[in-house]
Amino acid sequence: MAGMDGYYAWMLMATALVLMMTVPALALFYGGMTRARSVLNMMMMSYVAAAVVGIVYVLWGWSMSFGSQDVGGFFANPFELFGLEGVEWGDYIAVAFQMTFAIITAALISGAIADRVKFSAWLVFLPLWVTFSYFPIAHMVWGGGFIAEHFPAQDYAGGTVVHINAGIAGGILALIIGRRIGWPREQMRPHNLPLTMMGAALLWFGWYGFNVGSIVFAEGDGGAKDTAQFMTETGVTFMNTTVATMAAILAWLAVERILHGKATSLGAASGIVAGLVAITPACGAVGIVGAIAIGAASGALCAWAVGLKFKFGLDDSLDVVGVHLVGGLVGTLLIGLFSTASAPGGIDGLLYGGGFESLFNQFMAALIAIVWTGVFTTIIALAIKHTIGWRVDDEDEVTHGIDFAQHGESAYDIAGSTGSSF
Amino acid sequence: MAGMDGYYAWMLMATALVLMMTVPALALFYGGMTRARSVLNMMMMSYVAAAVVGIVYVLWGWSMSFGSQDVGGFFANPFELFGLEGVEWGDYIAVAFQMTFAIITAALISGAIADRVKFSAWLVFLPLWVTFSYFPIAHMVWGGGFIAEHFPAQDYAGGTVVHINAGIAGGILALIIGRRIGWPREQMRPHNLPLTMMGAALLWFGWYGFNVGSIVFAEGDGGAKDTAQFMTETGVTFMNTTVATMAAILAWLAVERILHGKATSLGAASGIVAGLVAITPACGAVGIVGAIAIGAASGALCAWAVGLKFKFGLDDSLDVVGVHLVGGLVGTLLIGLFSTASAPGGIDGLLYGGGFESLFNQFMAALIAIVWTGVFTTIIALAIKHTIGWRVDDEDEVTHGIDFAQHGESAYDIAGSTGSSF
Amino acid sequence: MAGMDGYYAWMLMATALVLMMTVPALALFYGGMTRARSVLNMMMMSYVAAAVVGIVYVLWGWSMSFGSQDVGGFFANPFELFGLEGVEWGDYIAVAFQMTFAIITAALISGAIADRVKFSAWLVFLPLWVTFSYFPIAHMVWGGGFIAEHFPAQDYAGGTVVHINAGIAGGILALIIGRRIGWPREQMRPHNLPLTMMGAALLWFGWYGFNVGSIVFAEGDGGAKDTAQFMTETGVTFMNTTVATMAAILAWLAVERILHGKATSLGAASGIVAGLVAITPACGAVGIVGAIAIGAASGALCAWAVGLKFKFGLDDSLDVVGVHLVGGLVGTLLIGLFSTASAPGGIDGLLYGGGFESLFNQFMAALIAIVWTGVFTTIIALAIKHTIGWRVDDEDEVTHGIDFAQHGESAYDIAGSTGSSF
Repeated sequence: MAGMDGYYAWMLMATALVLMMTVPALALFYGGMTRARSVLNMMMMSYVAAAVVGIVYVLWGWSMSFGSQDVGGFFANPFELFGLEGVEWGDYIAVAFQMTFAIITAALISGAIADRVKFSAWLVFLPLWVTFSYFPIAHMVWGGGFIAEHFPAQDYAGGTVVHINAGIAGGILALIIGRRIGWPREQMRPHNLPLTMMGAALLWFGWYGFNVGSIVFAEGDGGAKDTAQFMTETGVTFMNTTVATMAAILAWLAVERILHGKATSLGAASGIVAGLVAITPACGAVGIVGAIAIGAASGALCAWAVGLKFKFGLDDSLDVVGVHLVGGLVGTLLIGLFSTASAPGGIDGLLYGGGFESLFNQFMAALIAIVWTGVFTTIIALAIKHTIGWRVDDEDEVTHGIDFAQHGESAYDIAGSTGSSF
Repeated sequence: MAGMDGYYAWMLMATALVLMMTVPALALFYGGMTRARSVLNMMMMSYVAAAVVGIVYVLWGWSMSFGSQDVGGFFANPFELFGLEGVEWGDYIAVAFQMTFAIITAALISGAIADRVKFSAWLVFLPLWVTFSYFPIAHMVWGGGFIAEHFPAQDYAGGTVVHINAGIAGGILALIIGRRIGWPREQMRPHNLPLTMMGAALLWFGWYGFNVGSIVFAEGDGGAKDTAQFMTETGVTFMNTTVATMAAILAWLAVERILHGKATSLGAASGIVAGLVAITPACGAVGIVGAIAIGAASGALCAWAVGLKFKFGLDDSLDVVGVHLVGGLVGTLLIGLFSTASAPGGIDGLLYGGGFESLFNQFMAALIAIVWTGVFTTIIALAIKHTIGWRVDDEDEVTHGIDFAQHGESAYDIAGSTGSSF
Repeated sequence: MAGMDGYYAWMLMATALVLMMTVPALALFYGGMTRARSVLNMMMMSYVAAAVVGIVYVLWGWSMSFGSQDVGGFFANPFELFGLEGVEWGDYIAVAFQMTFAIITAALISGAIADRVKFSAWLVFLPLWVTFSYFPIAHMVWGGGFIAEHFPAQDYAGGTVVHINAGIAGGILALIIGRRIGWPREQMRPHNLPLTMMGAALLWFGWYGFNVGSIVFAEGDGGAKDTAQFMTETGVTFMNTTVATMAAILAWLAVERILHGKATSLGAASGIVAGLVAITPACGAVGIVGAIAIGAASGALCAWAVGLKFKFGLDDSLDVVGVHLVGGLVGTLLIGLFSTASAPGGIDGLLYGGGFESLFNQFMAALIAIVWTGVFTTIIALAIKHTIGWRVDDEDEVTHGIDFAQHGESAYDIAGSTGSSF
């Protein structure tokens, strides 16, 4: 029949939106939180993540994640569809859509190791990490692999694959690479909060592509359903994404107010991300009551969790663990409680009379993701540490700043703004 | 029939775009115009408007606006569809689309009261104002209520519901809350004009969702028309939105040049908004000649009107009255002149041989909106003033700045940008 | 048949995206690269380009580009469809889509002449240049004119029409208008690199509308194909756009590292644009191997070419020649090598067994565009130089800065950010 399916129009847009989440949205969100002399390096880590992971994805990433030649349930043969040989052009949007998820997951990790890492070490880390951690977990959860087969958890847009994965990896890197010199004694406060707020809002905007695109992608062939079915499935996904985020903003600000006396803009921006992270796996599993509960729980718990790094002495600089691991766990596990059979996922959770099976599967999926990425991230991080090394020179870190030391630039030259006649 | 209607793909995108208009676009537009020590509070007012109004909307906002149990033509029973009980998931995008309009209307008001309001007072104001002012007017105009029944005015995307409504509310708040200390004696110029320009441009981008989404939404069931009809209706709406904005930019800059000798970037940014505001109600009522005339009239009149606050001594800080009330009136009333029966609205205005009826209906719709929001905004504002109070402490306003006093933060820490070796 | 074609939903979105590329994306990309006291003027050049070129486009631009009354193969009768009289509203999205290409092409030129041009001269230049250079070349390439007829080159989204055209025009203006006072002796480094990085990323996001919209537009009536065909054609276009950009980022950074020792954020941002420019004409002509090759070639060559201006003493301030002319040529000519008959264009290039014909056509199209815009841009630039003059007063340029001199504003007032109690 002549004409283009609206399903496909949406997937074109969704794919562009998810790429936009990394460049510039995440780069702005993270960049604003660093010190002024580190913002370019922080943004660059996202920009090169897009370039490196994207190229790797078309080479062997798609093949390892979604190829048909399964290897023990853990990944698929990287050479089957190497360079997208044998993939029809009509499937390229599906490839591009999934590529953008690999990109943002890798980029998310950079927030844990701000201000102190050699650019070359990051460039080496990126292809290794997506190859040994991201592609296998994507295969296990979305590509019909181990988790999908044995513990069929619901993870629509990446609670395990994206957020728990990145959160664990960020925490391990922060541990192995070590603290910034002077942390936590010296105040290292955000240098440009409007940038961070803008980034958070653009992440929210793009996240509709992330979640509402995933619900469509997860259903396989778009052409098999009619408009009414699409409206039902995407309608609830879109609304869940929206109200969970709103609930998380309010919950985060409330916790801040209670703990510290004031609701901050950094809290509002972080609340946006915490809510979006938690609803990511759950967007197709719950109704709006569940979504509000998940969002509020994530906002409140993450607001509390980001303080723990000081207790544990872990310089997870921009709170990758506190937001992505915690929020990802909240969303992944609460599916076991709030999942409802009337949602696209069709599974009742504990509170909807469904027993413990859903909760168990969610728990096992999270656990396997944690163990897998924990092992491989540790190996990669140690290998880099003991070969090329992770850290910039102390003097560069303390005196010159990483932007100047690594890139020969400084971000701002604002002083000359006012004409001399002012 | 299998496949997703393209109509629905567009509504998914349009809804995300209109949410993006508030966070971050409006927040950036306003935030750049404040002083540097107030930008975070200004942005926060938009961010929490999204969170609070969004949650209220799913609780009782949709029910009051579009429920079937009309109460005297003024609003619908808030408990009929409370918490979206009884709303099918297939209608959730319609709900989400309308939710984003309530959000931005409330957020627009914040520009009138920059730099001086307690964050807690704003959090109390938001749910009250949308409940007593926004939801009823939306019901009266779009939900089949009083205005739609007795004075069937054309208001495609919110000339009365959004802009006149917010403009009046902003003016009343500015009056009741009072001027910033030092205004207008002290210069309180924008601290970051690139931020404001960026915000205006992102508003423009998102406004295609606002206007072209509304023309589709206004037609009810998308499936009832064919592609050719959609192309005609959305084609003219899209083009009207575009050329009206362009004409308004040029008109604003021309008036500035004449009145003050120079065309400013603040004028270009404001001209964008003035044009978009005026074409909002008219986008489906006129052709491109009418659109250019409406845009140019709005740009010129608003450019002149924003100077009046100094004459009246009203500290409408970021010109909510001067742009949204004036622009909203220009668009709403000029429909009576430029409306053409060949447009989707199907009504001839005065210049197209249609008599005074259209103009009369437009006038009455504007008048009723003004009176309604005038009364309820006054009551709410006075109630807050005499209970928890609106203003921050004088010392916080003058000495510490509202960002530090209310949120414990400051927006920028740029000084350290340059490495010491420079 | 009831319902809206998904093809059309995508074109609505694509058109909004391409407008967003100029305001704010290009304005941010350029604005961040100027000195702090010139950023508003730089951004304003893009904003008024949108307004002026947009209005001119509906008046006579569409008629000259795509009207049916051809004049010698060079342009079409500007009066045939003057003011869009006779154009059906159902075709308005096609008009709006093409309008956004004229806008960004004109705006691109401004980067070559930053910091020194009277705002009034730019306002005079804009309508003249699009009338005598842009509309004719668009007609010759896309409107069935001279190039399409005699040298049927492939140019999907504007290698000749947009980038070579703007690149040559920028170079000529830089030559005729002359260098900034002090250049290249004084360092005139970017004042806000995060702004530039953000602009580059938003350009990338919008470029999917540019390229993937163009492939659909180029095919004429969207209704004539089915979803599978659309998926094939847009899938490869989308993926080509993506991987070419990624390859260009990496190539640019590699060349920087080799030539200057460090990979910079300005390089990453410029690499994005270089890749996108080069894949613009080729997005529908090649497969992903070709796209990666074209992107890498453009990134590497442009990274080298931007240094040449210092050798030639040409103050092409923000590298319009070095990126848009060079990148446009790379993409336009390499089609002759990498074009494959299995792509939507259906033509085999030299490396795919297709002989020299494709390369010859690509070369001739580029040559004709260069000569045409070379002649007319020179005439217009000289006419302005010898009448109203291009340059601001020396004192304004050196002492006051162009923002203050031309617009009475300065971009930033950040100093007051920190409350006095800090």
